[in-house]
Amino acid sequence: MNRERVEVVEVGLRDGLQMLPIVVPTAEKLRWLSAEQACGVKRFEVASFVPVKNLPQMADAAAVVKASLGISKIHVAALAPNMKGAIAASEAGADIIVMPVSASEAHSSANVRKTPDEMVAEVGRVAMMRRETGLGFRLEAGIATAFGCTLQGAVSEDEVVRLSVAAVEAGADEIGLADTVGYATPGQVRRLFGKVRDAVGDRVNSAHFHDTRGTGLANVVAALDTGIRSFDSSLGGLGGCPFAPGASGNIATEDLVYMLESMGLDTGINLDQLIETQRMLTEILPGQTFFSKMAHAGLPLTYRENSHAA
Amino acid sequence: MNRERVEVVEVGLRDGLQMLPIVVPTAEKLRWLSAEQACGVKRFEVASFVPVKNLPQMADAAAVVKASLGISKIHVAALAPNMKGAIAASEAGADIIVMPVSASEAHSSANVRKTPDEMVAEVGRVAMMRRETGLGFRLEAGIATAFGCTLQGAVSEDEVVRLSVAAVEAGADEIGLADTVGYATPGQVRRLFGKVRDAVGDRVNSAHFHDTRGTGLANVVAALDTGIRSFDSSLGGLGGCPFAPGASGNIATEDLVYMLESMGLDTGINLDQLIETQRMLTEILPGQTFFSKMAHAGLPLTYRENSHAA
Repeated sequence: MNRERVEVVEVGLRDGLQMLPIVVPTAEKLRWLSAEQACGVKRFEVASFVPVKNLPQMADAAAVVKASLGISKIHVAALAPNMKGAIAASEAGADIIVMPVSASEAHSSANVRKTPDEMVAEVGRVAMMRRETGLGFRLEAGIATAFGCTLQGAVSEDEVVRLSVAAVEAGADEIGLADTVGYATPGQVRRLFGKVRDAVGDRVNSAHFHDTRGTGLANVVAALDTGIRSFDSSLGGLGGCPFAPGASGNIATEDLVYMLESMGLDTGINLDQLIETQRMLTEILPGQTFFSKMAHAGLPLTYRENSHAA
Repeated sequence: MNRERVEVVEVGLRDGLQMLPIVVPTAEKLRWLSAEQACGVKRFEVASFVPVKNLPQMADAAAVVKASLGISKIHVAALAPNMKGAIAASEAGADIIVMPVSASEAHSSANVRKTPDEMVAEVGRVAMMRRETGLGFRLEAGIATAFGCTLQGAVSEDEVVRLSVAAVEAGADEIGLADTVGYATPGQVRRLFGKVRDAVGDRVNSAHFHDTRGTGLANVVAALDTGIRSFDSSLGGLGGCPFAPGASGNIATEDLVYMLESMGLDTGINLDQLIETQRMLTEILPGQTFFSKMAHAGLPLTYRENSHAA
C-alpha cells in the first residue's frame, strides 16, 4: 500500500548548534550530516550565513555547504538574513536559501535590525539577484514569530498573512511558518495555516515548531490537518530556547519521525538508525542536554506494523 | 464569551505516586491535593485500593479518600481492581470508583491475574453490589492498554470496542480509554475513540494518555476532535513509565491546562497558581525527576488573551 509522503527537514546543524556556547568542528558537523543522511533524511538546513562575530558557531558555513553537496541525494538549505548572506550561500552552492521574515516588529528589529517590510524587500533583492545570475537555488521565506513573540507578545494573524503574500510577490517560491519562541498551540496552528493557505495556496508548505511548552507534536498534528507535509526538527531536540533557560527548543527529529510513521505516513527514514545517530550526537556533544523522548523510551513493539499501515 | 468546558482529572496522587520507591505521608498527599483544589481542579483520582504488600505507597488509601471528602467542591475517585477494593473504596466514601479492564490478555494476566472478561465480570459484581447497597458512587471502567501493550504488542481495536460494550452492559456508567504504556499516536486515537463512541455513545467520555514517546498532547488534540472533554494528567508529569526507565509517564497537568486554555477551552484552573503548586510538589518530593515543560518555560506573554478567546 502506498503511504503518503511527509518531508522531515533536519535543522539541528543550524538551529540546534547556533544556540551552543561551543564551536563544533566542521568535520564533526559533516559526520552528523552523513550519518543522518544514511538514515534517509533528504533535506538539511546546514548553516546560517551571518556575521562571524554574531555567531562564531557558523563561521564555517560555506565549507559546510560545499562539503554537504558532496553527500548524495540530499537537498542543502542555508539560512541567510540578507543579500550578503544570500550571495555567500549561493556561491557556496546551497540548493535552498531560507530568509527569515519576522512578523513581530520587535523581534525583527532585535534580530536583523530591519522592519518586516524591509526584510520582504531584501527577499525581493535576492530574487532579483537570482534572476540576473541565473542561479538555480530555491528561495524560501520563513515567517518567524508567526505565532507570537517573547518581546512583543501577540502577533497579528493578518500581519502574518500580509507578509506571506508580500514575500511571494517579492519572489519567494515557498513560505514556512515558524513558531520561533514556542508559543503556538493547535487551534492557532490550524487557523493561521488555513488563512495563509487561503492567501498563497500551496506556496505555504512547511512548519517549524519548537517544543518549549510541550505542544510541538500537537502542533504538527494540527498542521497536518491543514495539508502541510514538511516539518523542521532537530535531532535530539538539540537547541533549547534562548528565551527560556532549561526549556526545550526544536521538536526532536526522532520523536517527529516516530509520530508520523506511526500515523501511517511515510518519512523514508529508518527510525532505529536515527535513534542510533542521536546516540552518536551525544558523543559529538558530551554533556549536552537533549530533549528526545524516543532516546529514553525506545520503539513500541507495535511500531513496525503501525508504520506500514495506512 | 462562554468557552467550552473541559475537565482535567488530577491522577498524580494515584498514578504518579504509585511508581515511587518512597512512601509519601498522608498529610503531604493532602497538602498537595488542597493546593491543587485551590487552583480550580475539581476531580482527583486520589488512591488505589490494592493489597498493601503490592503497593505500600497506597496503604493509606482509605484515609486519603476520607480526608479528601472534607475538601470542598471536588469529586474523589479511587481505583479498585476488584470487588474487595471497590467495597473498601465505597466504604471510605469515594464518589467515583474506577475499575481497570485491560484490553491486553498479557497485561491483564500480569496486572490483576484475570482475563479481560473476568475483569468485566468483576465490574458487573461491583455494579450489583451498588444496586444492592444503594450506594451512590459512579462506576467507571478504564480500558487499559487500549492502544497497545509492552508485553503483548498490538491490541485489537475490535477487542477494545467489545470490552467497552461489555463493561457498559455490566453496569459501568462511564468508559475511559487509557494508553497505559505510551504507545498511542494521534491517528489511532481518532480512530479508536470514534469506534468506541459508535458502540457506546457518550458513555466513553475520558482519555488517559502517557507522554512516554512525546505524543501525549498530540493525542489530546486528536481525542478532542472526537468529542472527548475529560483528560487524566499528573502534576509535573510525575510518574515515569515502569516499562521504560528514564522515560516520562502521565502527561503533565500544567502542560495540559496550558494547551487547553490556549485553545480557548475552559478548564476552570488558574495556571499561574498551578505552576506554583508544581514547585511545592518538588519540595514534597525532593530529588524527583519531573517532566513539566511549563515549569521551565513559563507562561507566554500571549497566554491571557488566548485563554480568554474563543
